[in-house]
Amino acid sequence: MQGITVTVTTSPEAAEKATREALADEGFGILTEIDVAATLADKLGVQRPALKILGACNPQLAHTAIERDPTVSLLLPCNVVVEQTDEGVTVTAADPRQLLDDPFLADLAEDAATRLRRALDVVAAGS
Amino acid sequence: MQGITVTVTTSPEAAEKATREALADEGFGILTEIDVAATLADKLGVQRPALKILGACNPQLAHTAIERDPTVSLLLPCNVVVEQTDEGVTVTAADPRQLLDDPFLADLAEDAATRLRRALDVVAAGS
Repeated sequence: MQGITVTVTTSPEAAEKATREALADEGFGILTEIDVAATLADKLGVQRPALKILGACNPQLAHTAIERDPTVSLLLPCNVVVEQTDEGVTVTAADPRQLLDDPFLADLAEDAATRLRRALDVVAAGS
Repeated sequence: MQGITVTVTTSPEAAEKATREALADEGFGILTEIDVAATLADKLGVQRPALKILGACNPQLAHTAIERDPTVSLLLPCNVVVEQTDEGVTVTAADPRQLLDDPFLADLAEDAATRLRRALDVVAAGS
C-alpha cells in the first residue's frame, strides 16, 4: 500500500522523536511501538537497517469510528513507520483513506489523513 | 472489514489467555496490546464493554513479507480483537488475505490466515 510519507536526513532516533511530537500536536498518542529490526534480530538472527512501527491513535476519531463500525478496531491504530533507507530516514503513515475504504467513514478518514499529513510536513520542515 | 472470528462464552480475560496460547502454538507472538476500553475511559471518559486489540506477528512470515514488499510494515502486526458483545466474547483476527491484497504476497497471506483460523478454532473448542 501507499502511505503518507516524508524523507529526512536526521537519525532514525531524531526522526522518531520529531514524529512523536508532531503527532501529539495533532491529537495522536502513540499506543504501541514495535522495533522490527530488533525483533527480527532477536527472533531470526536477521540484521537489517532501523525499522520501527509506531501505532498512532487519535482517541476522539477512533471512538467515533468504532461507534459507527465496530470492525474498525481490526484496523487500529494507524501505523507510522520510521525506516532507515539508502535515501535517508523515511517516516510513512498508513493512509486512513485507503485503510477505511468505506463512504460511511470517509469524513473521519479524511480528517485523520489531513492531520497525519500536517504532522509529517512538520517533521520534514524541522529536519 | 470482515475478519476471521469465533464467539466464546468465557470471560474476556479467559478468552484473551486462550487466544495468546493458541496463537503462540501457530508461531505468532503478541507484540502489542491496546486496552481500547481503558484508553477511551481514560482519554474521553467513555464507558464501554471490554475491547482489546492484540498485535500478533509471526516473525518468519513478517520477515519474508517485508523482504518482498517493504510497505507491508504499514500493515503489521495482524490485529486480533477480543471484545465483549451481547452474544458473548468475540475473538476476531484481521484477515491477512484482505489486508495484503497483492498476488505477490498471496501465499504468505494464505499461510497466515490458515494459522489464525486454526488458532481461533482451538480457542472456540476450548471454551
